[in-house]
Amino acid sequence: MSRYQTLREQVYESNLELPRRGLVLYTFGNVSGIDREAGVVAIKPSGVPYETLRPEDIVLVDLENQVVEGTRRPSSDTKTHLLLYRNFTAIGGICHTHSTHAVAWAQAQLPLPLLGTTHADHLTTTVPCTAPMTEAMIRGDYELETGQQILDVFREQRLSPAEVEMVLVASHGPFTWGRDAAKAVYNAAVLEELAHMAWLTLQINPAAPPLSDALISKHYLRKHGKDSYYGQP
Amino acid sequence: MSRYQTLREQVYESNLELPRRGLVLYTFGNVSGIDREAGVVAIKPSGVPYETLRPEDIVLVDLENQVVEGTRRPSSDTKTHLLLYRNFTAIGGICHTHSTHAVAWAQAQLPLPLLGTTHADHLTTTVPCTAPMTEAMIRGDYELETGQQILDVFREQRLSPAEVEMVLVASHGPFTWGRDAAKAVYNAAVLEELAHMAWLTLQINPAAPPLSDALISKHYLRKHGKDSYYGQP
Amino acid sequence: MSRYQTLREQVYESNLELPRRGLVLYTFGNVSGIDREAGVVAIKPSGVPYETLRPEDIVLVDLENQVVEGTRRPSSDTKTHLLLYRNFTAIGGICHTHSTHAVAWAQAQLPLPLLGTTHADHLTTTVPCTAPMTEAMIRGDYELETGQQILDVFREQRLSPAEVEMVLVASHGPFTWGRDAAKAVYNAAVLEELAHMAWLTLQINPAAPPLSDALISKHYLRKHGKDSYYGQP
Amino acid sequence: MSRYQTLREQVYESNLELPRRGLVLYTFGNVSGIDREAGVVAIKPSGVPYETLRPEDIVLVDLENQVVEGTRRPSSDTKTHLLLYRNFTAIGGICHTHSTHAVAWAQAQLPLPLLGTTHADHLTTTVPCTAPMTEAMIRGDYELETGQQILDVFREQRLSPAEVEMVLVASHGPFTWGRDAAKAVYNAAVLEELAHMAWLTLQINPAAPPLSDALISKHYLRKHGKDSYYGQP
Repeated sequence: MSRYQTLREQVYESNLELPRRGLVLYTFGNVSGIDREAGVVAIKPSGVPYETLRPEDIVLVDLENQVVEGTRRPSSDTKTHLLLYRNFTAIGGICHTHSTHAVAWAQAQLPLPLLGTTHADHLTTTVPCTAPMTEAMIRGDYELETGQQILDVFREQRLSPAEVEMVLVASHGPFTWGRDAAKAVYNAAVLEELAHMAWLTLQINPAAPPLSDALISKHYLRKHGKDSYYGQP
Repeated sequence: MSRYQTLREQVYESNLELPRRGLVLYTFGNVSGIDREAGVVAIKPSGVPYETLRPEDIVLVDLENQVVEGTRRPSSDTKTHLLLYRNFTAIGGICHTHSTHAVAWAQAQLPLPLLGTTHADHLTTTVPCTAPMTEAMIRGDYELETGQQILDVFREQRLSPAEVEMVLVASHGPFTWGRDAAKAVYNAAVLEELAHMAWLTLQINPAAPPLSDALISKHYLRKHGKDSYYGQP
Repeated sequence: MSRYQTLREQVYESNLELPRRGLVLYTFGNVSGIDREAGVVAIKPSGVPYETLRPEDIVLVDLENQVVEGTRRPSSDTKTHLLLYRNFTAIGGICHTHSTHAVAWAQAQLPLPLLGTTHADHLTTTVPCTAPMTEAMIRGDYELETGQQILDVFREQRLSPAEVEMVLVASHGPFTWGRDAAKAVYNAAVLEELAHMAWLTLQINPAAPPLSDALISKHYLRKHGKDSYYGQP
Repeated sequence: MSRYQTLREQVYESNLELPRRGLVLYTFGNVSGIDREAGVVAIKPSGVPYETLRPEDIVLVDLENQVVEGTRRPSSDTKTHLLLYRNFTAIGGICHTHSTHAVAWAQAQLPLPLLGTTHADHLTTTVPCTAPMTEAMIRGDYELETGQQILDVFREQRLSPAEVEMVLVASHGPFTWGRDAAKAVYNAAVLEELAHMAWLTLQINPAAPPLSDALISKHYLRKHGKDSYYGQP
């Protein structure tokens, strides 16, 4: 049995969670997880339907995109995942979907505004939206450049990937991450709900105010950090 | 066996109703119920997924937030529930969700207008929305102050918690209550539907008129009070 | 066994179809059917949840609202149903729901515009919306007057209940009917879908044109009348 | 056993996929497939509910609309399907639905704008919308003329049915096609999702820009043509 069996099964399970949560149509999404010690990433194979996906279809690649185990071709978005793993060195899983409301904000090329406590329970900023890609980037190493756009918006806005575990890639859709593959999928479901709520809010009241700084801190710190008191000890 | 076994099981069942009704994502909600004679409140434990929640996980606290039975940490919103129980002395259950359309109205910081008979079947006023919290309130005893905001809007608008069993907490989301935990959840589902309908109505016709006083009274009194004739005798 | 057993079971089944089709929340709807020869109407009992409804709960009343069989109190909307049966003498079933999009149009107090062939497959006119009720009507025999509002809009617009099997009651919601209870529920589901489509259409293009007369006739006559060629002979 | 048994079963299965995917209400849709060698088309019978549809109900007709096998009357839209098969000679299956968001764009009489990579993964142009039909066309051979409207918009816009496998028929709804019946249904589900996303995007940002040519080409060619690298080899 592969030493990566546990990782492979976690990534398999997290991929199956995407259709269960209504986050993907057909094969429009992928989840990966990393074994940091081994430097090995497990990722969904490209274009394989969730209905027929088996644990052994999950592909293992190293951080330079060389296949370590598996007979399938890895997700076409693998280079985006790998660039994020190389630069966001504390994360353990990544998820990419084309979920409906998050894609709508990405296509609108707008960051997701912070309008309520549901959002602040998860992050203290708007969800950033990358700049549109230049033609040179698109014609170059496209999936790598997609990751680069994510790194760029985090650098420009001085965001921490440990605190902001989600991003909108302009004209494309969401990427989310977390301590493992399951948390990355959790964040994808949360982002889809936040995107739905923010749209509705601005439909009801285009002048809806952003959440106050005090409320942002309060809700975020209820759930995160040393003084958090949400959940079980 | 605990003397609170029935209460515990009712509150457990009512919590499970939240995901069944599509009112919560992950752990974004909680339901409580009270044994008025004993002064004991049963409430969901903080951050425990509905999929793994067991009746014995329900925590019992007294009205001063001292744990009476249970090994789990109670919901982080417990102080809000307790303040409502202490002041709305006739209610038997409370429900808090982050349901999509109700949250959108709360984030819009607008009361839910009374536009039709579906609404008037349940209450005779708009669903009130609290004032935004001040920074002092947020930095103080936050969950208690959340309850205080609810008490304040009821006092200012001279509303009766026996007649208006729902409220929107600005920038946060809905709280609902009723004679027991099941009725509180029922009201959460009704509020989500009313919020959905009101949004759609104003999208179709921004000048949609409020319901006439006569129709409000008629529908409310069909279902409530001594001359009601809805339901079985 | 009751001579009305078949009618009772048909009406029972049609009532259960409402939650299956997502047309009702809790008890917000009711279906009836009529035995024209006997002058007996079978209707849902008032306020009984669909989850616990049994065929023997269906109440049988005559056209003057006297109970013929059954121990339950009939739907609070029974007088509306009976007035329609007395005046629309060819119909065999009636359905009332508070389905989300149809209610939104009713609350907007606007007829449902005829924007496409999905609509014209079922009727050749806008779906009429009644006038708002006067205070006198509301304080009088309310449920009877609700039916009267439906008769009035059909008379004023010279509509035939055999051709237009649906109506929006202003500020309230839809009533639909047909040759039997099952067809009435079918029409309720169709109306909800038409209401959803019409709203979306006008959101996308507020200047979306009404369907041409030629296309209205063509689609309606494909499915209805002596030269219809839709369905099996 | 019929030599067309495999085709019949594929078309049967693809028709059942429509309600499973939420693409049809009642009988509002139909799928066909063709055996090009035999010149025989298998299509859903007219007006038969999906719940009771059996493989033997699928009707086989030749390209001139003569029944080859089957006792049922074929779909009322059969002539539209046959005209497309005769002119789009490489396609193997056709699907017609009244799915909610695609119908809304068709009723809005607007092509579906190309706003993101989800769209470009499937086609490189807006989804065309036919011109409204003239009265003469409607009163003539209506279903044939519906197909003619599709051929016309493809000719006028110089579109290839091998590259653009979907169209909106003005005031009516979508037709999609592909190498077989299953691919036609896949395209119907994709179109419904693209229609949902495009509507939401323009609600959020009416000035959302069309996708750049470079990004269109990149995403389309990732999935299509000799240099594609999506999916398994």
